[in-house]
Amino acid sequence: MKPTGPIPPYFAADSDGMLQIGGRRADDLVAEAGDTPLFVYDMDIVRQRAKRLRAAMPEALALHFAIKANPWAPVLAAMAPLVDGFDVASQGEMDRALAAGMAPDAISFAGPGKRDRELKAAIVAGVTLNAESEGEVSRALAIGRDLAIAPRIAIRVNPSFDLKGSGMKMGGGAKPFGVDADRVPALVEAVIKGGGDWRGFHIFAGSQSLDADAIIDAQAQTIALAAALAEEIGSAPRHVNIGGGLGIPYFSGDAALDVESIGAALSKQLKELPNILNETQFAMELGRWFVAEAGVYLTRVVDRKISHDQTFLVCDGGLHHQLAASGNFGTVIRRNYPIAVANRFLADASETVSVVGPLCTPLDRLGDQVALPHADPGDLIAVFLAGAYGRSASPTAFLGHPEPIEMLVNA
Amino acid sequence: MKPTGPIPPYFAADSDGMLQIGGRRADDLVAEAGDTPLFVYDMDIVRQRAKRLRAAMPEALALHFAIKANPWAPVLAAMAPLVDGFDVASQGEMDRALAAGMAPDAISFAGPGKRDRELKAAIVAGVTLNAESEGEVSRALAIGRDLAIAPRIAIRVNPSFDLKGSGMKMGGGAKPFGVDADRVPALVEAVIKGGGDWRGFHIFAGSQSLDADAIIDAQAQTIALAAALAEEIGSAPRHVNIGGGLGIPYFSGDAALDVESIGAALSKQLKELPNILNETQFAMELGRWFVAEAGVYLTRVVDRKISHDQTFLVCDGGLHHQLAASGNFGTVIRRNYPIAVANRFLADASETVSVVGPLCTPLDRLGDQVALPHADPGDLIAVFLAGAYGRSASPTAFLGHPEPIEMLVNA
Repeated sequence: MKPTGPIPPYFAADSDGMLQIGGRRADDLVAEAGDTPLFVYDMDIVRQRAKRLRAAMPEALALHFAIKANPWAPVLAAMAPLVDGFDVASQGEMDRALAAGMAPDAISFAGPGKRDRELKAAIVAGVTLNAESEGEVSRALAIGRDLAIAPRIAIRVNPSFDLKGSGMKMGGGAKPFGVDADRVPALVEAVIKGGGDWRGFHIFAGSQSLDADAIIDAQAQTIALAAALAEEIGSAPRHVNIGGGLGIPYFSGDAALDVESIGAALSKQLKELPNILNETQFAMELGRWFVAEAGVYLTRVVDRKISHDQTFLVCDGGLHHQLAASGNFGTVIRRNYPIAVANRFLADASETVSVVGPLCTPLDRLGDQVALPHADPGDLIAVFLAGAYGRSASPTAFLGHPEPIEMLVNA
Repeated sequence: MKPTGPIPPYFAADSDGMLQIGGRRADDLVAEAGDTPLFVYDMDIVRQRAKRLRAAMPEALALHFAIKANPWAPVLAAMAPLVDGFDVASQGEMDRALAAGMAPDAISFAGPGKRDRELKAAIVAGVTLNAESEGEVSRALAIGRDLAIAPRIAIRVNPSFDLKGSGMKMGGGAKPFGVDADRVPALVEAVIKGGGDWRGFHIFAGSQSLDADAIIDAQAQTIALAAALAEEIGSAPRHVNIGGGLGIPYFSGDAALDVESIGAALSKQLKELPNILNETQFAMELGRWFVAEAGVYLTRVVDRKISHDQTFLVCDGGLHHQLAASGNFGTVIRRNYPIAVANRFLADASETVSVVGPLCTPLDRLGDQVALPHADPGDLIAVFLAGAYGRSASPTAFLGHPEPIEMLVNA
């Protein structure tokens, strides 16, 4: 038996033992959707988390949603009133952010390799470019001159520190993201001299950390770096996006972050700011922290089979919708996400099974030797933490199965 | 500097140093497509390979294409006349195989967790089901009775051996695929007694092996297993699909398989068959071996940037189209696929660079510290071995970039 991650604390069953999502029975949600596999996102969970974060963080801190975590239009429409801005990573995402009603000046567009047409669309829309290189700044300024619009440009800084213990290191050493800190002052000068509307900095050291002290430390270094750059430039940044980095517990042994302690430390830091940053608006950018725990992936058991004394539950859903849960996206050693039999949510585990998908590849595994109550064909399996980097981060066309259904509850 | 895999032997440049694909200049293909990123598949390469395989393999051996490797409709239409059958892994793939003109009785449908509607569609179409479990056989027989059609059923056998050195082990030990060999005779009896049209066996020990001796050994074991099962059943299988397993060289140090020696050994084995298999039709099922080397992914350099003395070429294509090439699909240690500057194909390498995509994740890397000639924005990068498990096996929606273009040459 191998352990699974912790089921988020928002989920319980009704008296039948049926998992409830946002007050609805899982089987009713499947009936309403008409089929499995199905992603269900409970926006009440997102609102609870957003409220908790607002309360924990300094009042002056802007909260942004990185829509790459879940770019489904109904999710974005529900997110827009909860946050102060959206961060996007392509023209396609920018179009979705605008369609969700987010104001252009509350959207920032990061990402290396922005194409000229993407720069142009952002400049026309009035979206802030988080510029990733000298070349990008130069192209953006030229496009702005052609359009007679001053492009809004923040500089994404590649910090010399990283976020300790983060799942994805975005800073520290040679990186394709941002501009090495020592070249930033000259680049800001080039933005201003070239007719750009310099907006500030985007400094992002890493993501998916569960170590509050490491996050607090990275935030302190981020603010110090912003201040040092501002001093060197001789001008204050209007905005500083300090990135995110707040992780969620995916695996056995992971514990939820104490965001209140992070907020308290950040409040203290913002109160003791170097003078040059006194007028600066700080923003934190979070993706999965808002939405991952709000999503459940429901898939039906199609077959139960035994091979060499091991039991396999073969489901209609798999890695084509849940690449990260299958262990094939950025993880070296496969570990189990939290998983349950949705219609026997209260039953004790009675056997060790592997939960696999319908794809002809041994990679297609949602649960490897997990302890579950007995399940038969027709039963529903719930894979948790499906609200971020699920459908949009998976190879949905692989092997020709239908696209999964997505559904909101408590929109 | 880290090594790259060998560029397939089908590619050369014109006198300008421009990579040619199927006799066409890479830049002309991009101009015709109208944009990058672009997958180009040269069907002449596929035909050359199919011809070579036909010549190498015993005349009596049927050759099947596993369409999961590249299910794009124009590829399937061009493949159909080259092979004796298509193997599919979902109803979606079955529909594509039929649309490409493949006869239903030359299509077999494997895959765990086939849903009732998939079984029904296959039975109605006259496609052979490679049944993966007792439960699936029972469902198929019930659906056949309802339809008054005898379902064509082959049994997928989970062999007790695996294919040594294979990239994906499909046999040996507990597996979600097929039925353990010791339970197969009883299941065949159930098929026949239950009114099914028993077609034979599908025995697949592994894929992507570059060890000819291991493949020859697995084939001998496969035939021996088929014979032993037939003896126990007391009836000969009409068809035995011996799987594939023939790999292609992806990485530095890989060498192309000697398919002629495999063919010679298989010819000898088919000549010395146990009596009970004398009338059996054998088939080999290959996916990537046919098509991987025929495909090239062309992406344009958007930015060239330096970070901490390392040079990055940032391209408009990346892991959202080429998940496997980025090292994020079934590989533990990332290694470089063959990669080149398409418009400087004859130039010597002059620098070490990392070729990255436009996604905001450090996973998005097409070439890690590879030796290439100098390249600037506007230049074209070619990633080879893009004909199999490229677009359809990648998370194309991730981060909201456009779908890649696909194009055939020498259709």
